[in-house]
Amino acid sequence: MRATVYHGPRDMRVEAVPDPTLHAPTDVLVRVTHACICGSDLWPYRGIDEMGPGRRMGHEFMGVVEAAGVEVHTLKKGDRVIAPFKYSDGACDFCHDGITTSCRHGGFWGVGDVDGGQGEAVRVPYADGTLVALPPAVEGDEALLKAILPLTDVMATGHHAAVSAGVGPGKTVAVIGDGAVGLCGVLAAHRLGAERIIALGHHPDRLAIARRFGATDVVTARGEEAIAQVQAMTDGGARSVLECVGTQASLDTALAIARPGGRVGIVGVPHGSEGLGLGTMFMNNVTVGGGIAPARAYLPELLADVIAGKLDPSPVLDMTVDLEHVPHGYRAMDERRALKVMLRPS
Amino acid sequence: MRATVYHGPRDMRVEAVPDPTLHAPTDVLVRVTHACICGSDLWPYRGIDEMGPGRRMGHEFMGVVEAAGVEVHTLKKGDRVIAPFKYSDGACDFCHDGITTSCRHGGFWGVGDVDGGQGEAVRVPYADGTLVALPPAVEGDEALLKAILPLTDVMATGHHAAVSAGVGPGKTVAVIGDGAVGLCGVLAAHRLGAERIIALGHHPDRLAIARRFGATDVVTARGEEAIAQVQAMTDGGARSVLECVGTQASLDTALAIARPGGRVGIVGVPHGSEGLGLGTMFMNNVTVGGGIAPARAYLPELLADVIAGKLDPSPVLDMTVDLEHVPHGYRAMDERRALKVMLRPS
Repeated sequence: MRATVYHGPRDMRVEAVPDPTLHAPTDVLVRVTHACICGSDLWPYRGIDEMGPGRRMGHEFMGVVEAAGVEVHTLKKGDRVIAPFKYSDGACDFCHDGITTSCRHGGFWGVGDVDGGQGEAVRVPYADGTLVALPPAVEGDEALLKAILPLTDVMATGHHAAVSAGVGPGKTVAVIGDGAVGLCGVLAAHRLGAERIIALGHHPDRLAIARRFGATDVVTARGEEAIAQVQAMTDGGARSVLECVGTQASLDTALAIARPGGRVGIVGVPHGSEGLGLGTMFMNNVTVGGGIAPARAYLPELLADVIAGKLDPSPVLDMTVDLEHVPHGYRAMDERRALKVMLRPS
Repeated sequence: MRATVYHGPRDMRVEAVPDPTLHAPTDVLVRVTHACICGSDLWPYRGIDEMGPGRRMGHEFMGVVEAAGVEVHTLKKGDRVIAPFKYSDGACDFCHDGITTSCRHGGFWGVGDVDGGQGEAVRVPYADGTLVALPPAVEGDEALLKAILPLTDVMATGHHAAVSAGVGPGKTVAVIGDGAVGLCGVLAAHRLGAERIIALGHHPDRLAIARRFGATDVVTARGEEAIAQVQAMTDGGARSVLECVGTQASLDTALAIARPGGRVGIVGVPHGSEGLGLGTMFMNNVTVGGGIAPARAYLPELLADVIAGKLDPSPVLDMTVDLEHVPHGYRAMDERRALKVMLRPS
C-alpha cells in the first residue's frame, strides 16, 4: 500500500510500504477513508522535533474495518470506525480510570511496527479498546463525517483543555492559541456552558472561526499587553484558562491571566517550555492540569453530540487533499495557508 | 510592649517596640496568649530568604481581644480568638471564593505597620474578616488550646495540600516531608478518609508521629530510590501526592510518584525550585494544585473538629518557650532539636 513516510525536515513522501496484516488476534485492519495532518506533525516537519527517517506519519484517522482478529468482539468487517490518536487496550487500570493515554499496553501510531494514519490502511492493535464504531446512519453523509473526524485529536484535545481548566456553566474562560486545538477549545468551552470566552490569537481568519465557535471577546495583543488586557477585562483574571500552544511564552501568559483560585488546562505539547513558573501558581493558588488528551475516553460523549447536530468542529478543516498530495498539505499548513488539512486516501 | 524582631541571619531579638493602637475602625487589638515559630521563619533565620533588619516576626497566634474598633461587629473585648497566617477582609470577591490569601485588602503579619505574632500584642486589621472567635468552653483547657493553635498555619496548610491533591475516602496518598506541615498533611489525609498513607521523610522521631497521625507506610530512602519504592508499593504511583517541602528535589519526586491522572498538592513554599517539570506532568496527566493555604477559609471546619475531639495536631508542638526565650526556640528548630516551638507570651 501507499503511506506517508518522514525522510527529514520538509521531506515528507508518499511511498510504497508493506501491506498491513493481522499480527495479534485482537487486531483489526482498517482501510483509511479520512485522516488529518496535525499541528504536532509540523514539529518534526520543521526540524524542531528530532525524528528518524522512515517514520510513518499520521495519528488522526477514520475508516472501514477490512478484517478482524478472532479475539475482536465489538467490531466486524464493514464497520465504519474512528480511532483516537493513541491506541489503548481498554482493559487496564489506567484505561478504566479514563487515562487511556497512559494505557499499560498502549502506544503511538507510526511507532515500531504500527502503521500511521496518513496511508491507505492501518493495523489497529487492541481494536476493541482502541476503536469506536460509528452508527450506520453516518454512511454517505460527508459533512457529518467531516464533523466527526476532529474527534480523533483536536476536538478531544480542546475538550480536555476545557475539562482540565474546570470550565462550566457561567464561567469566564480564556483560550490561548488560535490553531485548531485552540479553536476546538473555544468550541468545547461554549459546549460546557461558559458565559464569557476570551480568545487570544494573532490570525484574523482563525479568530473569526473562534467567534463562530462561541468566543465573546478576542485579544490580538501579545505578551504583557495581552496579559494587561485580559486582567482588565476580567478584573483579576479568568477562572479557567486553556493553554493550547505549548511554548514558554504561552504558559507564562496562561499563569498570568488565571484568576486566584483558578485553573489552567494545558494541552499544547510542551516545546521550549522547560518548566512552569511556580511563584505565580503558588501565591495565587492556580491549579494546572491537563496534558496529552485521553481522546478515547471522551469519544463516545463527543461523538453523540456531533451525531445529534449539537457539535461541529469541521470548520477547522479548511483544505482537503488526496493521499498523493499529502506533501502539499504539509506545505500549506507550514506556510499557514491552511489551518488543518483533511486527507481522503479512499 | 515586647516583640520578636529580625536583625539578621541567626540574630532574632526580643525587644521593646511601640504598643499597638487601633488605626482603623475595623481593627481590634489582641493580647497574644499563644504563638508559634514556623518552619518558614527559618528561611530568613538561616539567611536563605532576604529580609531587612527590623522586621517583626510571627504569623501564627491566638489571644484575647483587648479593644475593638467601632466598625467591628463580630468580636468584643474579652473574646478569645485565633488568627490565620494572613489577614483578609472577608468581604472581597476572592474572600468569597475562599481564596482568602488573595484578599484584595489582605496582607502578611509583620509587614509595614502591622505587628507580628511573636510578641505581646497585635493590631489585627479587618478583624471581622480575619479572626475567628473560640467558644467559651475552651477557656482554661490548655491541651485543647494547644490542639487549636496549629490551625493558624501548619494544620490548615496540611489540609490544603490534601484538598488540593484530591484526597478522599479509599485513596492512596503519598506525603513528602516530615516537618510540621508534612505531618499535618498525613493527619489531614487520614481525616479525609485516605486508605493508605505513605509518609516520605528522614527523621525517625517525626515519622513516628506520622504513624500516630495515620501513616500506613513509611519511606526513608531519598531521590530515585524513594521514587522506585513508592512506584513499586503502588504499582504505578499514588493517586494523591502532598508536596510539603518546597525544594526542586521534592517537587521532582512528587511528580515522579504521582499516578497517571493523579494530583499533586503543593504547599511547601518554593525555595530553589524555579519550575515544575512539564514533561512528566503532561504525559501522565498529573494535575498540580495548591499553594499558599487559605487558612481563614478552612478555620471553621477544622476548628469544629478539634473542639469535637476528632482532630489533634498538637503533637507537632514539642517545645514551649516564653517570650524572652524565643531566640532559644529558633535555635532549637534550626538545630532540629525541636519540631515546632510554641510561645506563651502571656
